[in-house]
Amino acid sequence: MIAVEFFYDFASPYSYLASTRVEEVARRAGAAVRFRPFLLGGVFKATGNHPPGEVPAKARYLLVDLHRWAERYAVPFRWPSTFPIPSLLALRSALVAEKHGKLVPFTHAVFRAIYEQDLDVARPEVVARIADGVGLAGEAVASEAERMREALKAQTQEAVDRGAFGAPSFFVGEELFVGNDRLDFVEEALARSRGG
Amino acid sequence: MIAVEFFYDFASPYSYLASTRVEEVARRAGAAVRFRPFLLGGVFKATGNHPPGEVPAKARYLLVDLHRWAERYAVPFRWPSTFPIPSLLALRSALVAEKHGKLVPFTHAVFRAIYEQDLDVARPEVVARIADGVGLAGEAVASEAERMREALKAQTQEAVDRGAFGAPSFFVGEELFVGNDRLDFVEEALARSRGG
Repeated sequence: MIAVEFFYDFASPYSYLASTRVEEVARRAGAAVRFRPFLLGGVFKATGNHPPGEVPAKARYLLVDLHRWAERYAVPFRWPSTFPIPSLLALRSALVAEKHGKLVPFTHAVFRAIYEQDLDVARPEVVARIADGVGLAGEAVASEAERMREALKAQTQEAVDRGAFGAPSFFVGEELFVGNDRLDFVEEALARSRGG
Repeated sequence: MIAVEFFYDFASPYSYLASTRVEEVARRAGAAVRFRPFLLGGVFKATGNHPPGEVPAKARYLLVDLHRWAERYAVPFRWPSTFPIPSLLALRSALVAEKHGKLVPFTHAVFRAIYEQDLDVARPEVVARIADGVGLAGEAVASEAERMREALKAQTQEAVDRGAFGAPSFFVGEELFVGNDRLDFVEEALARSRGG
């Protein structure tokens, strides 16, 4: 089956927005989504790219832009109390959840915890509660997370090697699309892949 | 009449793409476009922002992305032999053209010269020929351009003061929209302004 790979970091608000739509986009194109958490900080370090919010005028604008997209998508969005968001524990935990077949619900639950409920996902007990909520043994997930250090690094490096420099990044085959605002191009590429 | 202000620099390929659509977008919303050339280099300097092509992985992607948009819009696009594009003379000349009521055709002609015909608009004779082509006295435009130094600076500073940090930048009233890929939001804002 044709698939889009969705590389995301919980620390990226545009990744959250994309997470609320990517499955519908793929479904319309008759395709699947492969969820692939990666570490955006590692991507920035490897590519020399910078967080978009470093420029004050841009940071002010991005907040407005994020709210516009949330309104268009009709999804909740609040700016987290803690920013930048310390996402490392949640990302590693996502790879634990993946081993147990729960990556997708876990991912959605973490995004909601941050951008709807303003919870601090750097705290192991918060991550454990999220994991519990999707049917995993929460404490075990949080404590197993550390073992995913290398797997997360490898997944991040793979994205960089394939050309990623920011988040969210989508691949249809080796075609790269960067940003929530490119989901329409992703859908077109999926439809073409299916037709071809 | 409701209007969208379109701040652009000839050096910005995404400004070129937007220039091919902004009038149609405004027309659909029953609005006008006010063309406002500004100096993107000055915007970067004032805001601390950087050209997006500075990161090699991003530069490679942007070229692909630009071609995708050109295909979607069904407009020609070629990467200019000279990049970054030395747009200062053409921008100042655009302000001369504006005094003579020819800003819009001059703007389109300069964008086509760069992104379709790959002409070097840093050369006064090239700018003079473009000005001739839209019914201006070409040589007079190129020689008068220097006198627009301060006017161009002032227009650039105005955009920065209102929150701009890149190009193209659109304003509907004081609502800022950045990027060719936000023209759909611009259209919605224009439609709302007309209804309100």
